[in-house]
Amino acid sequence: MAATRIQLMSPRNVRLLNVGRNELLAGGGGGGGCSLVRALTSSPALSSSSPGRALSSLSAARRGLPKEKMTENGVSPRAKVLTIDTMNPTVKKVEYAVRGPIVQRAVELERELSEGIKKPFVEVIKANIGDAHAMGQQPITFFRQVLALCSYPELLKDSTFPEDAKSRARRILESCGGNSMGSYSASQGIDAVRQDVARYIERRDGGVPCDPDDIYLTTGASDGIVTMLKLLVCGEGASRTGVMISIPQYPLYSAALAELDAVQINYYLNEEKCWSLDISELQRALDEARRHCNPRALCIINPGNPTGQVQSRQCIEDVIRFAAKERLFLMADEVYQDNVYADGCQFHSFKKVLFDMGPEYSDTVELASFHSTSKCYMGECGFRGGYMEILNMDDDVKAQLSKLVSVRLCPPVPGQALMDLVVNPPQPGEPSHEKFIKERTATLSALAEKAVLTEQVLNTVQGIRCNPVQGAMYSFPRITIPEKAVKEATDKGQQPDMFYCMKLLEETGICLVPGSGFGQKEGTYHFRMTILPPIDKLTILLNKVKEFHQKFLQQYS
Amino acid sequence: MAATRIQLMSPRNVRLLNVGRNELLAGGGGGGGCSLVRALTSSPALSSSSPGRALSSLSAARRGLPKEKMTENGVSPRAKVLTIDTMNPTVKKVEYAVRGPIVQRAVELERELSEGIKKPFVEVIKANIGDAHAMGQQPITFFRQVLALCSYPELLKDSTFPEDAKSRARRILESCGGNSMGSYSASQGIDAVRQDVARYIERRDGGVPCDPDDIYLTTGASDGIVTMLKLLVCGEGASRTGVMISIPQYPLYSAALAELDAVQINYYLNEEKCWSLDISELQRALDEARRHCNPRALCIINPGNPTGQVQSRQCIEDVIRFAAKERLFLMADEVYQDNVYADGCQFHSFKKVLFDMGPEYSDTVELASFHSTSKCYMGECGFRGGYMEILNMDDDVKAQLSKLVSVRLCPPVPGQALMDLVVNPPQPGEPSHEKFIKERTATLSALAEKAVLTEQVLNTVQGIRCNPVQGAMYSFPRITIPEKAVKEATDKGQQPDMFYCMKLLEETGICLVPGSGFGQKEGTYHFRMTILPPIDKLTILLNKVKEFHQKFLQQYS
Repeated sequence: MAATRIQLMSPRNVRLLNVGRNELLAGGGGGGGCSLVRALTSSPALSSSSPGRALSSLSAARRGLPKEKMTENGVSPRAKVLTIDTMNPTVKKVEYAVRGPIVQRAVELERELSEGIKKPFVEVIKANIGDAHAMGQQPITFFRQVLALCSYPELLKDSTFPEDAKSRARRILESCGGNSMGSYSASQGIDAVRQDVARYIERRDGGVPCDPDDIYLTTGASDGIVTMLKLLVCGEGASRTGVMISIPQYPLYSAALAELDAVQINYYLNEEKCWSLDISELQRALDEARRHCNPRALCIINPGNPTGQVQSRQCIEDVIRFAAKERLFLMADEVYQDNVYADGCQFHSFKKVLFDMGPEYSDTVELASFHSTSKCYMGECGFRGGYMEILNMDDDVKAQLSKLVSVRLCPPVPGQALMDLVVNPPQPGEPSHEKFIKERTATLSALAEKAVLTEQVLNTVQGIRCNPVQGAMYSFPRITIPEKAVKEATDKGQQPDMFYCMKLLEETGICLVPGSGFGQKEGTYHFRMTILPPIDKLTILLNKVKEFHQKFLQQYS
Repeated sequence: MAATRIQLMSPRNVRLLNVGRNELLAGGGGGGGCSLVRALTSSPALSSSSPGRALSSLSAARRGLPKEKMTENGVSPRAKVLTIDTMNPTVKKVEYAVRGPIVQRAVELERELSEGIKKPFVEVIKANIGDAHAMGQQPITFFRQVLALCSYPELLKDSTFPEDAKSRARRILESCGGNSMGSYSASQGIDAVRQDVARYIERRDGGVPCDPDDIYLTTGASDGIVTMLKLLVCGEGASRTGVMISIPQYPLYSAALAELDAVQINYYLNEEKCWSLDISELQRALDEARRHCNPRALCIINPGNPTGQVQSRQCIEDVIRFAAKERLFLMADEVYQDNVYADGCQFHSFKKVLFDMGPEYSDTVELASFHSTSKCYMGECGFRGGYMEILNMDDDVKAQLSKLVSVRLCPPVPGQALMDLVVNPPQPGEPSHEKFIKERTATLSALAEKAVLTEQVLNTVQGIRCNPVQGAMYSFPRITIPEKAVKEATDKGQQPDMFYCMKLLEETGICLVPGSGFGQKEGTYHFRMTILPPIDKLTILLNKVKEFHQKFLQQYS
């Protein structure tokens, strides 16, 4: 019966199932019915219950049957309450390439491999997302020891845990209701953690004062960024809020602006000058935008994602002056602040530069800066820890912000605990200090090595040009795509670099994100690749990309 | 210098500081300047850096100084980019009583006590929020052992951990990228966890099939509820999306609808019939709403928050029929599914009843149901774990949902792990089973005892009438507030029950939430009180409330 049903599926329905449910569909769009049958009987997702029951649990509608087939057991067809035409239109506009169709296809390919289906590769390498631990990076031992102690305080009696780990755990637990990470924290975050964050910022910024009350702990940096954008959005038509973001950008920004129905104002980074930011380009973008919206905020990612540049102190000062002159709320995404590799490059926080510029700026320019537990040397993405520091925010608005965050109760407490450890790691003289430094240094110097390797290898490929990876975790090389390939992609209704990356994935198992997902100058093409795989795997990956690109050029020239 | 400045503060500015920064303000609105000085020099938040530096870190604007005072060090006053008048108007409409002004005052009182200021009470008892561990409830040992093992896998070598805890930890880690909870999971949640959730639902609902692909793991239930509402919102003016919510309600719903600029459609629960739901009232509310908006969804909380009722199977069937007839998307908030105490009451999931009603309903009615790690017997609020199950959703919309959740990358992985343990606890024959059952039973029977105690004591008070607490974690008694008190409150611009709860807090240290924060019939007054404090503390609390209420009636009659 299942089989007959599946044969009734139109290709469109197969596609729909396909997008929504990779777990069930092993065969992808191509496979159609048969692959669905195979998947339904072989999918690990269903091994728990019998295929029969599983099938019956897919309602006729969701099985994508033509309407007339839905009258079995006397079920009369009825329209859905919620359809693509009646759903939130702003949600439809949202795009997020980092986890887009290419990643869904990568997941399918992994399943096909696991099912023994032959491919031109033995494993899928996901270089699409900055997910360090998934690429084999080891967690910092001290951090995980403290998290284990906080999770199961019985371990505080265990003599094998170092004393500094125990004292950190005790301090965190004492600041939790009922001494349990299972309690809600204050919505703004645990007081003690916000105090540690403030001290960290003061050390980082050479003594510039930081008030714990300006710190809001968040569910990863994304949560803080979206919350700030949410506060800024107002107006209709020509007075709609506009937000300036770099192109290329990290697509969280474009996605959040689409969902909030705000105007995205693109300013282009200068690829020829190593993805640097020109004030003249900011001015051009702003002046143009003023004709059709109300530009209110300027977002900067430093070190850059996906572009890997590290901004000079001078550039940051110019940006702050620009924001002050043009009355823009500054948002500084500084989640890669420890990821600086290139000689002569150094991380300067917007806050430090702001205070160096004197009270005319430090007492007036509104600034939100963001940090996270997900990147740098720790790479603890899964814990969703982060914070934002907010300067010169109007008191009434700050009260509204505090109210807004209270509705979601609190950020995950384990993530708050982890954030606390990141800003308050083992100190010299403490038992865990040496090991901590050793682990951190190993990770950061490996990343530095991989940054250089990536640039060097990619630049040996004819038709690929790669700026130095000064910081962050990605290279964003420019790739030549021949006219014939561009045409074939366009005929398929695909972006040329999506076409390129899909082909790369199918032929090599390497998963990259097309530049079109981040934005790029018209007619240029790129991909984003993380530098996170272990050096040996990264070497293989880079050589496969090299090989593929050469073949690709031959095939389409 | 600080002192002179503070004397310049207007009461309004004190209030503003007050809302935004309890950490700094010990004295509350009343205390004004002096309390600010004391707070600035004594606040733990500042002990890290010198008060001088801390003060200088508060910009003139944020210190709430009159503008003319802002010209110190040649700083010319300049308007903020983001002000209360130019911020997102929908955010301004958001209200969330559970963490409102009364809780902020409670936090201040705790500080005053810790600073040795004399009060008519020795401790603040927070009965405002369902925060079990903060009230002394102990975590389930097995859950925390597995979380510790997952956080620090070295412990898998530790022979003191039971084998079943280790096998659960291994299974979770094997389903994490790089075997680390620090990796991002799939945006919909870890596959293995979604499979366990599906099996749990099948067991719970007597074999009704559940497809893991219908499960989305979330950051607590709140996240899932907001995400679903987000999908449903569209239209302008008379075609704006309307969502039906019970009154009294859990204010997450009203807050989310305000932020999404959707129309809140109130249907009133029948207090006389133990907060039961009448279909005729649903019909009335719907028919009225259809005149000015487009009602598309119906939200049910069962067991009820704040009202504690448990819906009968018949009632749920009627609601489903109503939703089918009126073409409404059903949202079932079932986070208290294990919290049922009253004899003859039983939890029935909307999904189970839907399937019992046959394919005419189970293949057509669109249903999202929500669960969480925060309530029931585990009370693990801080981990922000949860899931939603989605039935009969249009495939295109489901693809949009999957895209939308991908923008936030993934729910916190420790919360996902905890959700996995909740749906897959120790089984008979496993080493941890006996202890788990013992701990769970102890917690649930204590709650049942406290539910009865609360109802009994409150009903002995003249002027308080309390329905039985059949389930969940709250009582929502109706309280008599004399005319004189109502007038005094109104003169103060306060809701009468807010006035009542504030007075209760100041005189007894007991923190409750006024009924006005949840919604109630015009002219009736209530408060919400959790039944979570330990039995001895709860007894004291109830007697204090009794005493206070009698005094209150005398004072104002």
